Amino acid sequence: MLSKNKIKFINSLKKKKHRTEQGLFIAEGSKLVRELLHNGLNALMLCATTHWYNNHTFPPGAKVSDRLEVTEKELQKISTLKTPPEVLGVFYIPAPTFHIEDFSGKLSLVLDRISDPGNLGTIIRLADWFGIEHMICSHDSVDLYNPKTVQSTMGSIARVRVFYRELTEVLKTGNQQMGFNVFGTFLEGNNLYTTELAREGLIVMGSESHGISPELHPFINRHIYIPSYPAGQAATAESLNVSMATGIICSEFRRREWVDTVDG
Amino acid sequence: MLSKNKIKFINSLKKKKHRTEQGLFIAEGSKLVRELLHNGLNALMLCATTHWYNNHTFPPGAKVSDRLEVTEKELQKISTLKTPPEVLGVFYIPAPTFHIEDFSGKLSLVLDRISDPGNLGTIIRLADWFGIEHMICSHDSVDLYNPKTVQSTMGSIARVRVFYRELTEVLKTGNQQMGFNVFGTFLEGNNLYTTELAREGLIVMGSESHGISPELHPFINRHIYIPSYPAGQAATAESLNVSMATGIICSEFRRREWVDTVDG
Repeated sequence: MLSKNKIKFINSLKKKKHRTEQGLFIAEGSKLVRELLHNGLNALMLCATTHWYNNHTFPPGAKVSDRLEVTEKELQKISTLKTPPEVLGVFYIPAPTFHIEDFSGKLSLVLDRISDPGNLGTIIRLADWFGIEHMICSHDSVDLYNPKTVQSTMGSIARVRVFYRELTEVLKTGNQQMGFNVFGTFLEGNNLYTTELAREGLIVMGSESHGISPELHPFINRHIYIPSYPAGQAATAESLNVSMATGIICSEFRRREWVDTVDG
Repeated sequence: MLSKNKIKFINSLKKKKHRTEQGLFIAEGSKLVRELLHNGLNALMLCATTHWYNNHTFPPGAKVSDRLEVTEKELQKISTLKTPPEVLGVFYIPAPTFHIEDFSGKLSLVLDRISDPGNLGTIIRLADWFGIEHMICSHDSVDLYNPKTVQSTMGSIARVRVFYRELTEVLKTGNQQMGFNVFGTFLEGNNLYTTELAREGLIVMGSESHGISPELHPFINRHIYIPSYPAGQAATAESLNVSMATGIICSEFRRREWVDTVDG
């Protein structure tokens, strides 16, 4: 049974303001909820049907404070999805500590003003695929715990650490103090396929409509560009979607390492 | 002024059944509408504000049967978008003829059971970027003229030709009669980064949840796979989104040609 107050409380978490105040977010569906628990996230409560509880065991060590049995009708009242799944979890937002040193020797993503929740989710999912452990978003990017973002990460949100920081500071420190390579996409950049890349560094991706913010330009020392096809002709499509561009760039960085490994 | 009947008629085109019966589809927004006209698509009608007509000239040769001046309130009644743009066009669905011979010497995409309209739109956009002129979808894929697909192509729908066909027949003819390379992604496929690819052929992409339909397997002679990172470890993310995987594969096919061109 779900009280009116609980329904109201869960629904309040659909807004960023309340998520931040409460330090909680919503995740739905068997696969996602189990993946979060499996990766050590703590749940304040699970709302699931009796059928679901009867058919699922929890991963060892799963931390769930409150296990509520609810009806499908009640799930409809709290779900963020058109077709509510059998389980909805309210999870504590983890608060990993940010140390620029943790980015040493690794490839990481920096997202400047990403506004679409689905794009952010897709980027987290591909970061997970390509073994990218850390991401940094500008403060004006969409919220990581927006239900659409959470759902579209397909569970990768539990493994990729996403920080919200003042990007000028991060890139300045990264580039000038830490000596990181800072890559960014620019129309007049070098051909991604033929230019030298690196095993480590930061890759800055800008918004589709506005590109990378001008104040970040001074700290980007490696300009790259995804060439369209055929070579030597202007692209007919104006641009690639930002998550697509991120995927293609990450793939090329990882391909180089693959080829190096095979050659070595 | 928009009559009640016109509003009803335009809204009926949000359903596939009516689009197919009428041979018409909806496209919204200045950029998209102008791009369709520019690429030779015929409009049955444009519904736009006086402000829009005053500030936009039509591309030369644009074919528009009916130019209606409407209010923003009226646009809200017919728009498929949360924030209706100043112009909505009703366009005739073009009917290009399918000849398997047209696929000779080119790289083309074959989509098996793609169900998400946004994914289809994103794939059309990236096909346009990577100079892929033709795509073939299985009959049970999402409709190309679904408003969400149309909008997410960002205008590329006017340039990439998309056919709906019985894929078993197409692949059989392509592979056995035409001698095309038919690529497909399989978990046990060859590493995309290190295996030999080709300048031409068909790339088959399956649905995220079900993969490539078993009845198509006999006609796929080149199995490929996008490796996750780090090499030699199981991926933590279960899979990549189908449009992301398509983008990464197309990028790698085109990269090879780039590198060949530079080397040659």
